[in-house]
Amino acid sequence: MAITLVIHGGAGNIHPGMMTKEQEVEYHNGLKLALDKGYDVLNNGGAAVDAVVAAIVELENNPIFNAGRGSVFTKKGLNEMDAAIMNGIDLSAGAVAGVRNIRNPIRLAKEVMLHSGHVFLSGAGAGEFALTRGIEMAPDDYFFNKGRYDQWVKIRDSDFTQLDHEEDNLKGPEPDPEYKFGTVGAAACDAHGNLAAGTSTGGMTNKRFGRIGDSPVIGAGTYANNNTCGISCTGHGEFFLRAVVAHDVSCLMEYKGLNLQQACATVVKDKLVKMKGEGGLIAVDAQGNYDFCFNSAGMYRAVRNNEGLERIAFYGE
Amino acid sequence: MAITLVIHGGAGNIHPGMMTKEQEVEYHNGLKLALDKGYDVLNNGGAAVDAVVAAIVELENNPIFNAGRGSVFTKKGLNEMDAAIMNGIDLSAGAVAGVRNIRNPIRLAKEVMLHSGHVFLSGAGAGEFALTRGIEMAPDDYFFNKGRYDQWVKIRDSDFTQLDHEEDNLKGPEPDPEYKFGTVGAAACDAHGNLAAGTSTGGMTNKRFGRIGDSPVIGAGTYANNNTCGISCTGHGEFFLRAVVAHDVSCLMEYKGLNLQQACATVVKDKLVKMKGEGGLIAVDAQGNYDFCFNSAGMYRAVRNNEGLERIAFYGE
Repeated sequence: MAITLVIHGGAGNIHPGMMTKEQEVEYHNGLKLALDKGYDVLNNGGAAVDAVVAAIVELENNPIFNAGRGSVFTKKGLNEMDAAIMNGIDLSAGAVAGVRNIRNPIRLAKEVMLHSGHVFLSGAGAGEFALTRGIEMAPDDYFFNKGRYDQWVKIRDSDFTQLDHEEDNLKGPEPDPEYKFGTVGAAACDAHGNLAAGTSTGGMTNKRFGRIGDSPVIGAGTYANNNTCGISCTGHGEFFLRAVVAHDVSCLMEYKGLNLQQACATVVKDKLVKMKGEGGLIAVDAQGNYDFCFNSAGMYRAVRNNEGLERIAFYGE
Repeated sequence: MAITLVIHGGAGNIHPGMMTKEQEVEYHNGLKLALDKGYDVLNNGGAAVDAVVAAIVELENNPIFNAGRGSVFTKKGLNEMDAAIMNGIDLSAGAVAGVRNIRNPIRLAKEVMLHSGHVFLSGAGAGEFALTRGIEMAPDDYFFNKGRYDQWVKIRDSDFTQLDHEEDNLKGPEPDPEYKFGTVGAAACDAHGNLAAGTSTGGMTNKRFGRIGDSPVIGAGTYANNNTCGISCTGHGEFFLRAVVAHDVSCLMEYKGLNLQQACATVVKDKLVKMKGEGGLIAVDAQGNYDFCFNSAGMYRAVRNNEGLERIAFYGE
């Protein structure tokens, strides 16, 4: 059986020349570590859902990605994170929105899936659930990052939001063309042909109003179904929510008979482009096929399978 | 052109003999008032999205329905409400989760759609947005209802949740067979063939952990697309989230060529039944066709169109 893992670390205006060689190495190594951690699970006969968690935990622990430890600051100077996971075997799913001080939000999402009796928990309530389940917490210091903080300080007195860390700025006083949509995700096909997908994000810098994007919304930013595909999205979440992106890819396969690549292209390169919804997604199907699909300049992405394929890329082809 | 409005006030084990004649009259009148308010908008050439808001506002204002004024109590003795609206013309959408002291959450959802730059706001942040937009607030007293309070007091020291007001009890110490899934919703087709749908709920009695159900999730409990249908769901939200119910109906029409009734039946009477996901939905398409579809014993529901049809029903056919 084919085993395949795909991961992403966000999409956006990521193009040659925007990073120093050192930064490129840092992103490469960050993706490589997460890819290997997740792939090891699959290679040892583990479940797709566990490979997805293992890969995302590494991305959450790496401060260069906007998720977990590297989460950006909200309008109030807090780190509020969202995450979701879905198991394609039985369509079970778990998601959290607006959680604070959770070291690995993807682990909390899995706990919601397995032990809450619910699918979607939010805010302080989700934090309470985390305490009842012994989920690992971390102090504010753990999430503090000078770069992210300075980025927030620059815009905190404005109503502008940034869609990612460092250079992003879709709606700022001086729009920065080097924006990225900061999110991480993984999708896997295991040796039993089971699919899973997960997504984790720190949201938008200076976000207000308890904004929830597509990442934790089952069907929008995250979806897995053994009959079709496993999908994790990254992009301008409002458009991904309205287009129900991940589930739309699945339905194009199930009801219209498109293959994985055709379905991804239809949604990302046609429908989303018409809506002006920028971003991308990673996808696997139960035959171990994979796809990277984005309408932005680039996407931090990586794939590894049991046919010897291993590829890490940032920029458009 | 056909104009059509459908509304619901929740589904569940609603069967002949469970209500007194007086209660039946109360539900009939409540549905009739909401139906007429919404229909008047359509009849005066108004937009589907405004008809949906007008109908849902009446249902939210009526304490017999679990939404707005009649919302149930959470574990902490609070009223936390969710709502969503979607406009089929351009797939614009707005949703709120876990809001307090908002007199009409559906109005806040519409404000999010039109004026927030976002789609989905939650908790205290959504309340802050409401203040910036001058949305009407209401004190706790406004939401206080002796029946709902007594129902909560009975189970507040347990971990059990109830899916609706009054008699509902899916997971209680003494399961009450007369449970209902308390939600209200509306879907409309206006004279221009534009579709819209909206949903509003007070959630589950004694709910914990900031639980979010399907109602405010675009694609799950609420969806509208002029190419296919407008849908509002009511049921055991966790299953509706995992099945991405409203968007699935739309995709079965768009990609598989099913008509409205076939698509609704496939999702509600086949897929959801196999998952043991109880509940139902109301639906319209751009030709003014409508459907009520539920796998529970009954659903509070009503329809009115410009061919003289007006029907209000509670029980299975």
